[in-house]
Amino acid sequence: MTRHHDTDRTPVTVIGLGRMGRALAEAFLRDGHPTTVWNRTAAKAEPLVASGATLAGSVADAVAAGPLVVVCITDSDAVRELLDPAGGVLGGRVLVNLSTGTSQAARATAEWAAGWGAAYLDGAIMGTPAAIGTADAFLLYNGSRPAFDEHEAALRSLGAGTAYLAEDPALSALHEMAVLSLMWNTMNGFLHGAALLTRAGVDATTFAPVAKASIETVAGWVSGYARQIDSGAYPVDDITLGAHAVAMRHLIDESAAVGVSTELPRFLASLADRAVNAGRGDDGYVAMIEQFRTPEEKR
Amino acid sequence: MTRHHDTDRTPVTVIGLGRMGRALAEAFLRDGHPTTVWNRTAAKAEPLVASGATLAGSVADAVAAGPLVVVCITDSDAVRELLDPAGGVLGGRVLVNLSTGTSQAARATAEWAAGWGAAYLDGAIMGTPAAIGTADAFLLYNGSRPAFDEHEAALRSLGAGTAYLAEDPALSALHEMAVLSLMWNTMNGFLHGAALLTRAGVDATTFAPVAKASIETVAGWVSGYARQIDSGAYPVDDITLGAHAVAMRHLIDESAAVGVSTELPRFLASLADRAVNAGRGDDGYVAMIEQFRTPEEKR
Ligand SMILES: NC(=O)c1ccc[n+]([C@@H]2O[C@H](COP(=O)([O-])OP(=O)(O)OC[C@H]3O[C@@H](n4cnc5c(N)ncnc54)[C@H](OP(=O)(O)O)[C@@H]3O)[C@@H](O)[C@H]2O)c1
Ligand SMILES: NC(=O)c1ccc[n+]([C@@H]2O[C@H](COP(=O)([O-])OP(=O)(O)OC[C@H]3O[C@@H](n4cnc5c(N)ncnc54)[C@H](OP(=O)(O)O)[C@@H]3O)[C@@H](O)[C@H]2O)c1
Repeated sequence: MTRHHDTDRTPVTVIGLGRMGRALAEAFLRDGHPTTVWNRTAAKAEPLVASGATLAGSVADAVAAGPLVVVCITDSDAVRELLDPAGGVLGGRVLVNLSTGTSQAARATAEWAAGWGAAYLDGAIMGTPAAIGTADAFLLYNGSRPAFDEHEAALRSLGAGTAYLAEDPALSALHEMAVLSLMWNTMNGFLHGAALLTRAGVDATTFAPVAKASIETVAGWVSGYARQIDSGAYPVDDITLGAHAVAMRHLIDESAAVGVSTELPRFLASLADRAVNAGRGDDGYVAMIEQFRTPEEKR
Repeated sequence: MTRHHDTDRTPVTVIGLGRMGRALAEAFLRDGHPTTVWNRTAAKAEPLVASGATLAGSVADAVAAGPLVVVCITDSDAVRELLDPAGGVLGGRVLVNLSTGTSQAARATAEWAAGWGAAYLDGAIMGTPAAIGTADAFLLYNGSRPAFDEHEAALRSLGAGTAYLAEDPALSALHEMAVLSLMWNTMNGFLHGAALLTRAGVDATTFAPVAKASIETVAGWVSGYARQIDSGAYPVDDITLGAHAVAMRHLIDESAAVGVSTELPRFLASLADRAVNAGRGDDGYVAMIEQFRTPEEKR
């Protein structure tokens, strides 16, 4: 089904048509943007072309097709290499990098883009491909404010939660890294908990509502925790870090007793024990931030 | 202020008056239960006595004061030792153990209580002292079904979310361990993320709403993840484990570059790399459960 392109919609280019890039291109198409696409493996463009996208023959042709170029490939570090042959046509356009990577890669790509006369926005997608184009997708942009202002309407096609933070292009990547750490750790905690319960014959689907409620409970704590972090004081309002460390030892024993890996609880306990040994046993859990802040070589 | 004791309310005993035990006794008192209390350090009973509780002179006197005995001390393993001198008066009463511990300790305590002719319930408190007695406290009970049925009304004083699961007294502890693992890991992820961002000058309070939304996003995934776990298949619906493993390497680099500890991301990546090497790179994240399920010595 070919979609109608509204003539008042900014033409957009999407480079990289993996799970996420395809969802991005579909969202632009749904919103009526004339959409040019390119992917290293060209076959992945087919469903998009069937929906009305134009397949460019080269990265340079893709970049040249419009004022707004969105790139979403596996690795942010590969963006410069991929787009360098198209540098000559980048000038005057806006490059939006939605690939995951370090803030160092974002800064390097911003400088590289500036060298070609392009404006640069680095974006972080906090959401899955299925959420793209809905109210559930949150996309955070940092970099050129004029570029964001000019293309905010188009970028909003990707998700209702579209926000600009600051000129420093590094901050999107840093937020994405922080969110990924949060998500991976949360998922690991859920999976380790599910491993324990399923060993005892409790279905993971029975655990799920309890887990969901517990995760939401922690979600309710973070703003208070954040205030403690910013103030640098970690008073205990529920349970001391020392008591947590004792309970972590139970988690190790429990894991061993039911026959699941003790690796995760031993890791948790080693961090907590270090904090207790550093005199934080009577503080609240937030005192653990010092364990994450201190690089290994400074311990 | 002395509170009124309703004559139709079950007399209750609370042993252990730390942060949590005190909250439990206060909730019983608020609901009009004649409440007897005991604590190793007697002075902690004072505010409760001022609110109408009766301070028992010994553990045995505390146990003898009523049909329902709730114990909440640091360590579930210490419960038997603490209550053994009162074994002779335990017979015919219901012992509710709300102390944190392993499911092995719960089972041992259940057997020990049965030896004295007491009915046993093992409970897990999923909530903070501040939540006790409110709609936000979730308490899960396992053990004697008749004991739960008889005292459900009194136990409901401790939180609206009062639920009974099964006869196996081990299941409360196992759920609590699973929830604690989930919570500790989630908090660590938040703290590591906050460590990254605050190093770059972003306040933790700025990160908090993004973190909260991200945690809630993960909460929305767990029921689908649970279905995958129970089915034993981990199809990818958003991003492959292989791609996660690549992004974890970025988190290590980012942490090193901004000067925070790389310990947590290295731990995440070592688990994910192992899963990828075991052939799970094209599966979804849930495939990681096998890393948690497999004890170290079976790898
Ligand atoms: N999926 C999610 O839930 C999600 C969420 C937030 C952020 N992200 C981020 O979005 C980005 C893309 O993820 P995805 O889910 O779309 O991954 P994916 O399905 O694995 O697709 C990867 C894409 O990157 C392309 N690519 C990789 N290396 C390349 C290179 N050196 N040169 C040119 N193209 C290259 C691939 O091209 P080929 O088709 O030719 O291999 C493909 O289009 C990643 O940075 C990811 O972290 C994804
Ligand atoms: N606080 C929370 O947010 C929370 C949430 C869920 C579950 N829990 C669980 O609730 C239990 C109590 O926690 P809490 O927060 O009340 O801890 P707490 O404030 O540190 O108080 C610990 C209590 O245990 C007593 N105790 C410890 N060892 C004892 C022993 N060998 N014999 C007799 N009494 C002993 C202490 O007596 P003294 O006063 O004499 O030291 C005190 O009453 C723990 O298992 C905890 O994991 C707490």
